[in-house]
Amino acid sequence: MTAGTTSGGPIPVALLPDNDPYISEAVLTAGGELTDLDGARVLVWTGDVAGFPEPLPDHIEWVQLRLAGIESFLDAGLLDEKRIWTNASGFYAENVAEHALALLLTGLRQINTAVLRHWDKESIDTSVRSLHGSTVAIIGAGGIARSLIPRLAACGAAVIAVNRSGRDVDGAMETLSFDRLDEVWSRCDHVVLAAPSTDETRHLINAQTLAAMRSHAWLINVARGPLVDEDALRRALIDGEIAGAALDVTDPEPPAADNPLWDLPNVIITPHVANPSSGLTRTLAPWVGENLRRFAAGGDDMLARVDPNASY
Amino acid sequence: MTAGTTSGGPIPVALLPDNDPYISEAVLTAGGELTDLDGARVLVWTGDVAGFPEPLPDHIEWVQLRLAGIESFLDAGLLDEKRIWTNASGFYAENVAEHALALLLTGLRQINTAVLRHWDKESIDTSVRSLHGSTVAIIGAGGIARSLIPRLAACGAAVIAVNRSGRDVDGAMETLSFDRLDEVWSRCDHVVLAAPSTDETRHLINAQTLAAMRSHAWLINVARGPLVDEDALRRALIDGEIAGAALDVTDPEPPAADNPLWDLPNVIITPHVANPSSGLTRTLAPWVGENLRRFAAGGDDMLARVDPNASY
Repeated sequence: MTAGTTSGGPIPVALLPDNDPYISEAVLTAGGELTDLDGARVLVWTGDVAGFPEPLPDHIEWVQLRLAGIESFLDAGLLDEKRIWTNASGFYAENVAEHALALLLTGLRQINTAVLRHWDKESIDTSVRSLHGSTVAIIGAGGIARSLIPRLAACGAAVIAVNRSGRDVDGAMETLSFDRLDEVWSRCDHVVLAAPSTDETRHLINAQTLAAMRSHAWLINVARGPLVDEDALRRALIDGEIAGAALDVTDPEPPAADNPLWDLPNVIITPHVANPSSGLTRTLAPWVGENLRRFAAGGDDMLARVDPNASY
Repeated sequence: MTAGTTSGGPIPVALLPDNDPYISEAVLTAGGELTDLDGARVLVWTGDVAGFPEPLPDHIEWVQLRLAGIESFLDAGLLDEKRIWTNASGFYAENVAEHALALLLTGLRQINTAVLRHWDKESIDTSVRSLHGSTVAIIGAGGIARSLIPRLAACGAAVIAVNRSGRDVDGAMETLSFDRLDEVWSRCDHVVLAAPSTDETRHLINAQTLAAMRSHAWLINVARGPLVDEDALRRALIDGEIAGAALDVTDPEPPAADNPLWDLPNVIITPHVANPSSGLTRTLAPWVGENLRRFAAGGDDMLARVDPNASY
């Protein structure tokens, strides 16, 4: 049930700082109406922390933010307990999971090599590998892993999931907690990084873990650059300790123009586009619509609700 | 039940012309034993038509060939009705389907562009597209399509299958017969070619069909080069009639070094490696093992059985 049918009128939504066309349409379709901040019950804020309305009027009952990483809003002390706050946690997982699969398949099928070395059939024919029948470890098994597992399963690959709790992840062959990470490297064919960047995960991929991986392993990073010790990675790739690395994130970004990673034939680098900025609101829009329906129905089961008191 | 348990001894298999290690192991695992042609009941022939044993002794009850395309064996009149013949029809479908998915994802996620243009974030961020929510037409819906459909479904894409009969293909949103091909182009986002090369399918992709496709469409060819009119394709790519083409096969192969396709930024060419020659017997081996088990159990339901009298 939408606001239009429950309270006799559409829910007034302020869409700021820009009148994004995708979200605008989603709000209208979900039974909302667009208004300015003064007349709104809901704020959909598609901007960064700079410029966020302060103080936020008390009549704003719910704020929808645009990203999953809202550290800057928390740091600025903007989140209060006067209203519902939602971020975009999980909303972009399908997109990032697709990019991770794309990177892994590009490497295994040697399409990166084919793009650079025209019809080098002799060499490429012997280096093409299949995902079918392999085991993929996903380190940091949250929303991206939940989206990636069915994709990998459809390609005939099994998954070892690694998360903080060790609690079983749906569809994974096995789930391990982070403290058992050492067991993972030699048991999987490929590794996908999908963990947040924290002190604990910094250089999680290092000389020791790279040495423990199989020589045919591909390393995929769609998380954050600092998870990987890039000097160690470069040495491992040159020495053939692993087969290749496909990185959507680096540390720093972009890598320096003279970074040797650019010239290694078994490295694929995409410019942090697993969740493209330009497509963000297009992806976000249906989720905002769904959350608006849930808000209209009482707001008890809003998606990606943030606890202002929880650490991130 | 295997030969070992039914008749008191393993089934004697001749593996020719080479003693391939993958197939050898599969034969032994399935309860067979390796022997020379004179002592064999089964011949697994991993070679081409040249050198095939002629005449084949009558005590060979079953011949397993290595490829799905066995035109040369049929043309040479080698297939007779004295025994069972099996080819590899469908055995490589998973591999080819994976390559088709890999090509489509490489193009949509612009990984080919990222490999050539280092961290060109501004341009790549706006051109990355997602497979999620799209519709893919698979032209020639046999084994490759059956393997590709679940992979596409896991990525959130719907499939329109096109085959000779129009008989429903499992998992496809809709199946059309070839005579309704004209309806397909404007209704799908992307096109995967998986049809055999015949007089009928020659230049199935031509100026007219390319003009009918959507401007964001990617064309994937894992079938045969002659299905595509490459001159028309080149013009369509330059004019922006479609977004890109990823070709594992061309006409001729390889394309000439001065073929303009090599230089178009929205073209990906892999050197006919969707089913790599070097990995053929590794992929074939478990199927040979399974067929040996079925042969031992009476041979009534052998996989990829060939009717020597049928045309191909």
